[in-house]
Amino acid sequence: MNIVLLSGGSGKRLWPLSNDVRSKQFIKIFKTPHGSYESMVQRIYRQIKTADKDANITIATSRAQVSAIHNQLGDDIGISVEPCRKDTFPAIVLASAYLTDVRGVNPEESVVVCPVDPYVEDAYFEALKSLGRLAEKGDANLVLMGIEPTYPSEKYGYIIPESNDTVSSVSTFKEKPHMETAKEYIAQGALWNGGVFAYKLSYLLDKAHSLLDFTDYEDLYNKYDTLPRISFDYAVAEKESRLQVMRFRGEWKDLGTWNTLTEAMEENVIGSGILNDQCSGVHIINEMDVPILAMGLSDVVISASPEGILVSDKEQSSYIKPYVDGLEQQIMFAEKSWGSFRVMDVENESMTIKVTLNAGHKMNYHSHRNRDEVWVVIQGKGRTIVDGMKQNVKSGDVITMSAGCRHTIIAETELKLIEVQLGTDISVHDKQKFELEYD
Amino acid sequence: MNIVLLSGGSGKRLWPLSNDVRSKQFIKIFKTPHGSYESMVQRIYRQIKTADKDANITIATSRAQVSAIHNQLGDDIGISVEPCRKDTFPAIVLASAYLTDVRGVNPEESVVVCPVDPYVEDAYFEALKSLGRLAEKGDANLVLMGIEPTYPSEKYGYIIPESNDTVSSVSTFKEKPHMETAKEYIAQGALWNGGVFAYKLSYLLDKAHSLLDFTDYEDLYNKYDTLPRISFDYAVAEKESRLQVMRFRGEWKDLGTWNTLTEAMEENVIGSGILNDQCSGVHIINEMDVPILAMGLSDVVISASPEGILVSDKEQSSYIKPYVDGLEQQIMFAEKSWGSFRVMDVENESMTIKVTLNAGHKMNYHSHRNRDEVWVVIQGKGRTIVDGMKQNVKSGDVITMSAGCRHTIIAETELKLIEVQLGTDISVHDKQKFELEYD
Repeated sequence: MNIVLLSGGSGKRLWPLSNDVRSKQFIKIFKTPHGSYESMVQRIYRQIKTADKDANITIATSRAQVSAIHNQLGDDIGISVEPCRKDTFPAIVLASAYLTDVRGVNPEESVVVCPVDPYVEDAYFEALKSLGRLAEKGDANLVLMGIEPTYPSEKYGYIIPESNDTVSSVSTFKEKPHMETAKEYIAQGALWNGGVFAYKLSYLLDKAHSLLDFTDYEDLYNKYDTLPRISFDYAVAEKESRLQVMRFRGEWKDLGTWNTLTEAMEENVIGSGILNDQCSGVHIINEMDVPILAMGLSDVVISASPEGILVSDKEQSSYIKPYVDGLEQQIMFAEKSWGSFRVMDVENESMTIKVTLNAGHKMNYHSHRNRDEVWVVIQGKGRTIVDGMKQNVKSGDVITMSAGCRHTIIAETELKLIEVQLGTDISVHDKQKFELEYD
Repeated sequence: MNIVLLSGGSGKRLWPLSNDVRSKQFIKIFKTPHGSYESMVQRIYRQIKTADKDANITIATSRAQVSAIHNQLGDDIGISVEPCRKDTFPAIVLASAYLTDVRGVNPEESVVVCPVDPYVEDAYFEALKSLGRLAEKGDANLVLMGIEPTYPSEKYGYIIPESNDTVSSVSTFKEKPHMETAKEYIAQGALWNGGVFAYKLSYLLDKAHSLLDFTDYEDLYNKYDTLPRISFDYAVAEKESRLQVMRFRGEWKDLGTWNTLTEAMEENVIGSGILNDQCSGVHIINEMDVPILAMGLSDVVISASPEGILVSDKEQSSYIKPYVDGLEQQIMFAEKSWGSFRVMDVENESMTIKVTLNAGHKMNYHSHRNRDEVWVVIQGKGRTIVDGMKQNVKSGDVITMSAGCRHTIIAETELKLIEVQLGTDISVHDKQKFELEYD
């Protein structure tokens, strides 16, 4: 099975755990069969590999997520990187061209496209396989998944099928309705459009060439910023006559708010937290290294990260966005392809950061115009390159770098360091990258 | 007026803002007339000085609080330091001997003793002055303040006066009663015993010499650990026949729990915090540098410090103690006489701390057996002494110190530094202090 996971943009609805650089799909909140925690993207990746160990998984995403994806899924995962954000049609065409031109997939094979973030069980992945087989069979150009509604949601578009059969032609599509209209749709047998569908690569690429002027993946990638912002539904699905919908009645949850997300949590507390016996329906998700004590609360979610602390009635939590948009914040932690960092202290003319490099990984070779830096290695060993000079380093070593000096550190084991940045104009944008002449 | 403020021990009822090293009286939670925030001890000190600018204030406390008192009240405050914790009688005798023998107060002057932590208004301090005058007048050896009860409290002892006059003889004392008994006492005209009283120094010292074997302050200080644990009420008040009680009807609050403390807050939010419009009766006290967002909560207190985060229904907050006692915590921040520190990161073989030295202050000259240290100065200027060698330092300078090396830093301006401790057995107890030969 070829599968393209659409990994959507950043959002603040799960603040303080999601932010401008970390989307909700990277929050480690789900208990694995082995007792540790995994994120949405790790969970769905694991579930796909369980359903089909040979699945060819590609993640279609923006540049901003590449580091986090490599950090969470390793270096072997296929990523189709959008040079800038367009809508779903350009993203899906780019991923399809990536599959044929970069990964060498036969254009007669089918591809299943689905969002990275639904909370689903095994039956869903069996349905994805069926979807792919239907597309390959070729009775339709496009096979959609129609999810049987569990309530008259205003959040989804609806698909009205021609019949109640498991696989049916499509009568029509409906935009996100108001609740009363949603009830009418459901009475007519309508299904949720969860953005899951399958097609043959050759079909989609022919369609793409008829709508966009490009030769191959590389050409498309280079002119990506000139492409129209247009959704897949509008460009393709709603105009296609050879269309099928396959009915799915298994569990399918969209965990977009704290209220729905906590429903999917197996335990009430993740991280350091205590609930007294007068708490009911309380969830704690604590990414800080200090304990949270909750007493006498009902139906409240408490979430803490180095960016902030949310304490919200669960129902109220869906109204979070305007409050969080009002917060002026710098990014206080991030996962990178080489490890992670956390901001520990910010002063007018200094910033102190804890950096963790995974074994075998390194920073870019870079310099800063407006700040000096000091590294104190606190764990592990590796080597630094400073203005071309190599040096082995270990816990306890101190490296000082003046503004302009080129530097990197390569971790032999897992390596942790305290970085003190010193200057009058400290900014994440003050970074010049260089090629290493040797390593 | 001579006044002795009894500054009681540490407690965890206001966790995470109070802890083993910071008592509730040092939490800066009250808005000053100038718009900044002050602690209980700063508030009462300011109020006394407003009522009587010449007041001679002595704080009777333990060694553990001396740094915090100097940090909050400056270096000129009189402190009678108990070498170890006994009960109120030895503490009051020590403070009285301190006043005559160290501060040179005339033994015929009176002293007013009161706890450091009641939340009171100006009328209270006028009452303290009256109490002192009554003691000096000498119609009684001991003059107690009797607070008119506002409800049948189970938390206080009661004083039954002979009459309803403003000043009366005392009929008897009653231990903390159950509520029904408290109601009966109040029906008899009983007053709360708030631990506020006045006496002539000569009276108390004569009494002390009759009960304890000591010559003067220094002698008493040196044998303090051999003294009996005995309360002032038991040793003196309940046995004294020449006793008066002075009635006080002004505001007098004991802010011992989050519930009562938040009642005394002028604003709902101290520190960085947002309440949405669906919150009512919510208080945020945030000592962290990340924002707290509260949504849809009622009658909840949220308090955050580098030691932890409390989210509690206000009524429930009085039951906090067993939960906090169960937390194993190291001290994450503290106010010292020279400034303050905050723990930023703890690893197995390293600890990273931010240190702030007030201008003109210095650390002790000290060394560590089992850890190396690195200082990175991030703000201000001063000088270091490392194994006797002086060096001027400023922002950006790095100082490395091996285990065993003696070191201190003296702040010329306010000076901030990042201290990285490195070793396999890092402990606050690994500290040897030395005299500086020169400075």
